[in-house]
Amino acid sequence: MDYFEANSERFLEGLKTWLRIPSISTAPEHKPDIRRAAEFIAAELRDAGLQNAGLIEGQGHPLVYAEWLGAPGKPTLLFYGHYDVQPPDPLDEWKSAPFEPEIRDNNIYARGASDDKGQTYILVKAVEGLLKTRGKLPINVRFLIEGEEEVGGEHIAAYVAGKPANLKADAAVICDTEMFAPDLPTLCVGLRGIVYGELRVEGASHDLHSGVYGGAAPNPIQAIAEILCALKDRDGHILIPGFTDRVIAPSEKESAAWARLPFNEREYREKEMGARELVGEPEHTLFERVWARPTLEVHGIRGGFTGEGAKTVIPARALAKLSMRLVADQRPEEATAQLKAAVARVCPRGVTAEFESIHGAAPSLVNPDNPFIRAAASAMAEVFGGETVYIRSGGSIPIVGSFDQHLGIPSVLMGFGLPDDNLHAPNEKFHLPNFYRGIRAVARYLDVLGE
Amino acid sequence: MDYFEANSERFLEGLKTWLRIPSISTAPEHKPDIRRAAEFIAAELRDAGLQNAGLIEGQGHPLVYAEWLGAPGKPTLLFYGHYDVQPPDPLDEWKSAPFEPEIRDNNIYARGASDDKGQTYILVKAVEGLLKTRGKLPINVRFLIEGEEEVGGEHIAAYVAGKPANLKADAAVICDTEMFAPDLPTLCVGLRGIVYGELRVEGASHDLHSGVYGGAAPNPIQAIAEILCALKDRDGHILIPGFTDRVIAPSEKESAAWARLPFNEREYREKEMGARELVGEPEHTLFERVWARPTLEVHGIRGGFTGEGAKTVIPARALAKLSMRLVADQRPEEATAQLKAAVARVCPRGVTAEFESIHGAAPSLVNPDNPFIRAAASAMAEVFGGETVYIRSGGSIPIVGSFDQHLGIPSVLMGFGLPDDNLHAPNEKFHLPNFYRGIRAVARYLDVLGE
Repeated sequence: MDYFEANSERFLEGLKTWLRIPSISTAPEHKPDIRRAAEFIAAELRDAGLQNAGLIEGQGHPLVYAEWLGAPGKPTLLFYGHYDVQPPDPLDEWKSAPFEPEIRDNNIYARGASDDKGQTYILVKAVEGLLKTRGKLPINVRFLIEGEEEVGGEHIAAYVAGKPANLKADAAVICDTEMFAPDLPTLCVGLRGIVYGELRVEGASHDLHSGVYGGAAPNPIQAIAEILCALKDRDGHILIPGFTDRVIAPSEKESAAWARLPFNEREYREKEMGARELVGEPEHTLFERVWARPTLEVHGIRGGFTGEGAKTVIPARALAKLSMRLVADQRPEEATAQLKAAVARVCPRGVTAEFESIHGAAPSLVNPDNPFIRAAASAMAEVFGGETVYIRSGGSIPIVGSFDQHLGIPSVLMGFGLPDDNLHAPNEKFHLPNFYRGIRAVARYLDVLGE
Repeated sequence: MDYFEANSERFLEGLKTWLRIPSISTAPEHKPDIRRAAEFIAAELRDAGLQNAGLIEGQGHPLVYAEWLGAPGKPTLLFYGHYDVQPPDPLDEWKSAPFEPEIRDNNIYARGASDDKGQTYILVKAVEGLLKTRGKLPINVRFLIEGEEEVGGEHIAAYVAGKPANLKADAAVICDTEMFAPDLPTLCVGLRGIVYGELRVEGASHDLHSGVYGGAAPNPIQAIAEILCALKDRDGHILIPGFTDRVIAPSEKESAAWARLPFNEREYREKEMGARELVGEPEHTLFERVWARPTLEVHGIRGGFTGEGAKTVIPARALAKLSMRLVADQRPEEATAQLKAAVARVCPRGVTAEFESIHGAAPSLVNPDNPFIRAAASAMAEVFGGETVYIRSGGSIPIVGSFDQHLGIPSVLMGFGLPDDNLHAPNEKFHLPNFYRGIRAVARYLDVLGE
């Protein structure tokens, strides 16, 4: 019986203690809980044998830092996780209380179980196991754990942008993603970036009556419709000039690997999405469309009358929430400029239209032949007993772009969640076998890198 | 000094008394005021010498009825007006209290001054003048005054649909419109009809994350945009098959008369609408576009995220408020069926789309050679001292369709409001010279019809 096996009960109790702290970052009344959660994990890092463990204060919730740098000449990993969680609403849909962890069917149910306390705890316990049994680590590690991941992560972004010396590392490890399927060790090597903003259209100076002025008055909602249709055709092709020029198609090898993933498209469409039909560019496969192709999506339109009944108003102005998902090698600033130019070109008569960006994040794509990826794949395959698959994610993790841009390091997205973990939803869970295998896989990863 | 001149002060005091009653039909707390306003005008009709003056009770606010039928063999006019008013909000923009009538610059300022107490009072006082001075009228008249015009007029619609014997008439006179310009006697001979409804589009069974599913998920807002653009081109041409088949173009004579109307397009666009440019079907003149051409207008879209900031949601469903304005000889039911068929035909992949009508009203068009119109034009020209012009209105007055459909009679839209009367807005006013000339014009109208 090794250290990990001997301490499995204690690890679980520690995780439970952490999960009981309702560290909801969106809720100001939970500010004391946020701090308690940060102090808890800082103490765990200290007890695990790491040095300089403590809180980094800033404008928002504190960052938690710790390091172990006793392996000169060896690589340094920067471990990232977050200790804040989503609100638990709607409460009445939880089978057990969100901040009273309960074990059922080999899963631990609680808000934050998978996203991201359970996964962050894996990193801490892996390092603890090696330090407690050997007194040292095979490589150098730093921890940077934030408390604002669910609210935009401004503190960590500002901190990383300052390129502090204590973040010097060769690669980052982000333990906040999921495996493609149970028992299938998975590394995520690509993320889409994003530009999110508002399209503002103005017609007349005030709302007009559609009886009196209909036929002469510009309609900003119709104008938004015309702009949207001019920017994307019915097959999902984005018609913004130059927009796709930098898109890098997946290699034949990568596409072939995606085609081999265990996947039931009908279940995905019917059970996961509840959709009648999948749409999007017909010449691209599903995984290409959601992982390796950019999108232009409208999220809502504000303006005009949307109450019950009827009001015959032609609104003076309307606003659409739009986003573009970007893939390597697209750049947020360039895509924003291309969209602005396209909007100006297709803007209908009688209105003005302007796009303003609210936030952006660069896409990221790591070469699977990168030694930090190769080592992670090998460690996971060893522990899980199967070949590691490489996937991408259609979402955006802004910290990956920050690490790349400011620290110049790639991120290894080594996650142990499962697709049905109910992130951000009632009955969030974490699969306990993945918790324990995750700890061993991370420990093994350090050994492989130290070899 | 004739009766009208001798009693002008008393007429004004009577109108002020009526205007002081806040008969706001949308506000349940004003129900007693609604009844007081109805009883006030019923008493005025009785005092004027009309018979059977009283309230007709029904589901909503009472109708006011009165009649004088002492001219056998002569035509019968049905006078229509309404005693309910719009809410006065925003209160702080009124220069004098909305229910404390004040005279400034030859205008009476109060909520309802022009819409429609002042204009309805014209009809009552014209009849009073004739009855008090001659003891009889040159023709027969009936009054039907409603208290729900600002809230949909359900009571009167149901009552008229019953074709009651006491509404038997040869023509209706509606005193609730405006003159094209000050001192320009005006008859409105055409109204657009309307179909107002909701376009409901459904995609997936629940909202989806645009990062994870963007590129594969149907987007109901984008689908609404695609439907809108498929139903109307950028030049305002409606592309619903069969939709314009029944549209009757204005005669050359009518078009020529419109071209002679005193009109400053730049003032209309800049001051009245506050628009950069007038839009719509380029091959039609402005008056054709707003009076004699149908429209398809979107009034709002509900669904998705429209709050502050960013939320990357692909909504499961979205709803658009749409209206079609109809012109003679289009029919609401047929236009609704054509729209439904067109929506089905252009509905994008991955979503369902359905249009449901909320309410409809037929368009109306009266031949200016109709003897009731000719007589009205002649009476107004005589009193105002200038040729009467014929215009149309782009709006809809549903009661006109009810009178046509159920009573089989045309409506004479003989209005004395002015374009700057601030209907439904703060500082509503009625021009006093129009009040007095209106009374004389209506009295003269009865004489002309009696000849």
